[in-house]
Amino acid sequence: MAEPRPERLQAGPADASLEPPLQPFGPGRRLAAEALGTALLLAIVIGSGIMGERLAGGNAAIALLGNTLATGAGLVVLISIFGPVSGAHFNPAVTLIFAVRRELSARLALAYVAAQVTGAVLGVFAAHAMFAGPILQISTKLRDGPAQAFSEAVAAFGLVATIRGALRFRPDVTPMAVGLYITSAYWFTASTAFANPAVTLARSLSDTFAGIAPSSAPAFIAAQLAGALAAVAVMGWLLRREA
Amino acid sequence: MAEPRPERLQAGPADASLEPPLQPFGPGRRLAAEALGTALLLAIVIGSGIMGERLAGGNAAIALLGNTLATGAGLVVLISIFGPVSGAHFNPAVTLIFAVRRELSARLALAYVAAQVTGAVLGVFAAHAMFAGPILQISTKLRDGPAQAFSEAVAAFGLVATIRGALRFRPDVTPMAVGLYITSAYWFTASTAFANPAVTLARSLSDTFAGIAPSSAPAFIAAQLAGALAAVAVMGWLLRREA
Amino acid sequence: MAEPRPERLQAGPADASLEPPLQPFGPGRRLAAEALGTALLLAIVIGSGIMGERLAGGNAAIALLGNTLATGAGLVVLISIFGPVSGAHFNPAVTLIFAVRRELSARLALAYVAAQVTGAVLGVFAAHAMFAGPILQISTKLRDGPAQAFSEAVAAFGLVATIRGALRFRPDVTPMAVGLYITSAYWFTASTAFANPAVTLARSLSDTFAGIAPSSAPAFIAAQLAGALAAVAVMGWLLRREA
Amino acid sequence: MAEPRPERLQAGPADASLEPPLQPFGPGRRLAAEALGTALLLAIVIGSGIMGERLAGGNAAIALLGNTLATGAGLVVLISIFGPVSGAHFNPAVTLIFAVRRELSARLALAYVAAQVTGAVLGVFAAHAMFAGPILQISTKLRDGPAQAFSEAVAAFGLVATIRGALRFRPDVTPMAVGLYITSAYWFTASTAFANPAVTLARSLSDTFAGIAPSSAPAFIAAQLAGALAAVAVMGWLLRREA
Repeated sequence: MAEPRPERLQAGPADASLEPPLQPFGPGRRLAAEALGTALLLAIVIGSGIMGERLAGGNAAIALLGNTLATGAGLVVLISIFGPVSGAHFNPAVTLIFAVRRELSARLALAYVAAQVTGAVLGVFAAHAMFAGPILQISTKLRDGPAQAFSEAVAAFGLVATIRGALRFRPDVTPMAVGLYITSAYWFTASTAFANPAVTLARSLSDTFAGIAPSSAPAFIAAQLAGALAAVAVMGWLLRREA
Repeated sequence: MAEPRPERLQAGPADASLEPPLQPFGPGRRLAAEALGTALLLAIVIGSGIMGERLAGGNAAIALLGNTLATGAGLVVLISIFGPVSGAHFNPAVTLIFAVRRELSARLALAYVAAQVTGAVLGVFAAHAMFAGPILQISTKLRDGPAQAFSEAVAAFGLVATIRGALRFRPDVTPMAVGLYITSAYWFTASTAFANPAVTLARSLSDTFAGIAPSSAPAFIAAQLAGALAAVAVMGWLLRREA
Repeated sequence: MAEPRPERLQAGPADASLEPPLQPFGPGRRLAAEALGTALLLAIVIGSGIMGERLAGGNAAIALLGNTLATGAGLVVLISIFGPVSGAHFNPAVTLIFAVRRELSARLALAYVAAQVTGAVLGVFAAHAMFAGPILQISTKLRDGPAQAFSEAVAAFGLVATIRGALRFRPDVTPMAVGLYITSAYWFTASTAFANPAVTLARSLSDTFAGIAPSSAPAFIAAQLAGALAAVAVMGWLLRREA
Repeated sequence: MAEPRPERLQAGPADASLEPPLQPFGPGRRLAAEALGTALLLAIVIGSGIMGERLAGGNAAIALLGNTLATGAGLVVLISIFGPVSGAHFNPAVTLIFAVRRELSARLALAYVAAQVTGAVLGVFAAHAMFAGPILQISTKLRDGPAQAFSEAVAAFGLVATIRGALRFRPDVTPMAVGLYITSAYWFTASTAFANPAVTLARSLSDTFAGIAPSSAPAFIAAQLAGALAAVAVMGWLLRREA
């Protein structure tokens, strides 16, 4: 891990941009990176869930270990290779934060979200194809109740806190920080930390280990957005340099 | 991992400060970072313990694998994002060391400990809420006897040796070093390495996988402080540059 | 969200070479590095598969966890130590990409592939010797059908995308990126991500956990090459700087 | 595919020292670092083996997963914090290599080995104390036969190749490379990769998961030294710059 860059810590603006400079890549490539990266993310989440469930002989903890390992490792890679192109949001809640901070125009932010959702759905289809299941599925896995929603709020709070803290102090370790955060959150939240509205929508289209019934999705997404916005407020105060 | 910074190795003071420069952040933000970081740490420790126990079908080693993965990964993230604000102690034994070295005033050190304990308890409550259990619990898990106490002394010795060594030679890898150390110590000590008085107190309030009966806590805390102070002495001698 | 290295992003050529400078080492040492590295890779893949199967008591997910951990960790090491000598391809599909880009002469590329295949077979033999099995074996493990082939195409696509993205933006993390990618791909593809024609051929010579029946190998290899070439096209477009 | 650091590759001596500069620390501190580091290493290896066996309900693969995780993670930490003091050999086979290259005097090398063996035995005792077992034990776990010896030769070959390659090209990642190598080798060798004569001797004093019967130890140690010397020869040739 690289050392904190002193110029950021000492001479940077009090509330520096979250977004590294992305000028070399135009909107078309940025949207393609969001779509492709989110597609691969969903192929990883769904595919490793199926693999875990098939092999684990009914022990859900072992299945979740494989699912966790694949997702955490995969996220580090995807953020490393697509981050310099599009920022590697892969997540409407993350895009929302950049839009709120006016680092992304409303129009581009909407296009990001559309690319993420499209990619996510295609990634679920790819996972089903790899495991020879029906391409089109609807999850029957209910994940309801206030404890599940609270879990998603905590999961998204932690994710946004991780991204904001990493981009502020150690932008070069952001891919690793996000991968490790999700590795942890798969286990410490009761919902296994979806923490991502596009991922939630797409996972409702898979009747497998990592699926979520469509009826459970709206509460998840609302909780995710609430947790993300809470993290923006808390971390915004915490990381502000005093005069 | 960054290469060792030669200036530290060759030109730095013989017994340099452990604490990276934290001036940009005032006491309020530092205490908030300690409280929030410790809360998230406990949410991770307790939450992943519950998840592991629920899913592992009675196999405690599998539950501990999940608990370990979540805690180690989470610690790397929390220290990376809160370290530049408060030092990311999250642990009264670590704060004690900085106070003994007069790098933290007695008054601020006490406030750090209060923030850590408060955050730790809130983190336990958050984990219980996420898993839909009663918020207030008292652990019934006895962890008694000299072998358990010796384990805690070793665990805290190793933790402080890790922190001192990392801050001396490779401060940029401290978050990873601490996360990996705890990953290891969850398995090589018979007590699963609490190594932290605030964590010990808070875990007495959870009747789950990671809990500890209140009657077992005092011996744990005494052993942790003894191990930490022993590491200060041993590493202080070992890392002192000769004239 | 990885931080782009500004000098590469802004001043480098629009489509920089994938290959770091390898001049100090002549063809003999480069081929030896390819052979030795691929041999060790196969010893790891086959050996850890046997170990997992022997110890896991019939739970294939646990066996795959050990197999995954060993392969991912081992790849990071092998690419770190042999990369500066030969590029650490260990994979004819990767060598093909460099040849297509004319960064490797056709003659040297063919020699690379021969070294890789030879090393891979010797590595399988070494694994059999370590586990006291017959040196010469033929796998009986059928891995047939379009879902398996599609899995291999996805696996190779992702591997090449990982390599191209890492070499473009963060060449120093390439060993880690490839190790993490394979860690993930062992779980998210239905074929456990061979993604390598030399590895596929050699694994047909092992009637163990990680083997593949010779009759299943040709479809795997064709799919791998197709996936790799697709990634060259897609990533070539995605990473091209606009005028 | 790691990026070579150009100054080393192009301006360094053709066969640079393996040892980073250690001048600030005198022999007393260096020997203390070897003893303390090796003691902690053995406490980790034996302790996590006991923990794994106790919790895994008879599934040796799950026990080995915990043992592997603890050992790999612990090694990264120990090498990071003791490496700048003593080189963090913790292993007579590694010390032998430095002595053969005359980077360590014969006298200091012997003192290193004595410190390693003493530390290793004390570390085993500490693990037994932590787990409330008898301090003095003799292993009854036979690990005999040519396949086991060949495994140890391969394990030591790989370890020395890892150290030589990492110190040559990326000295800053050596702790991580060694930790990952051992993580891999615990699974891909039939002997679970002792790869260290001091560790082998000390593990003969533990009748637990990680033990080895004293009668099996001599063949292990001979094979380790043979493998290490083979790696010195092969890597010495491979990494030599051509005129």
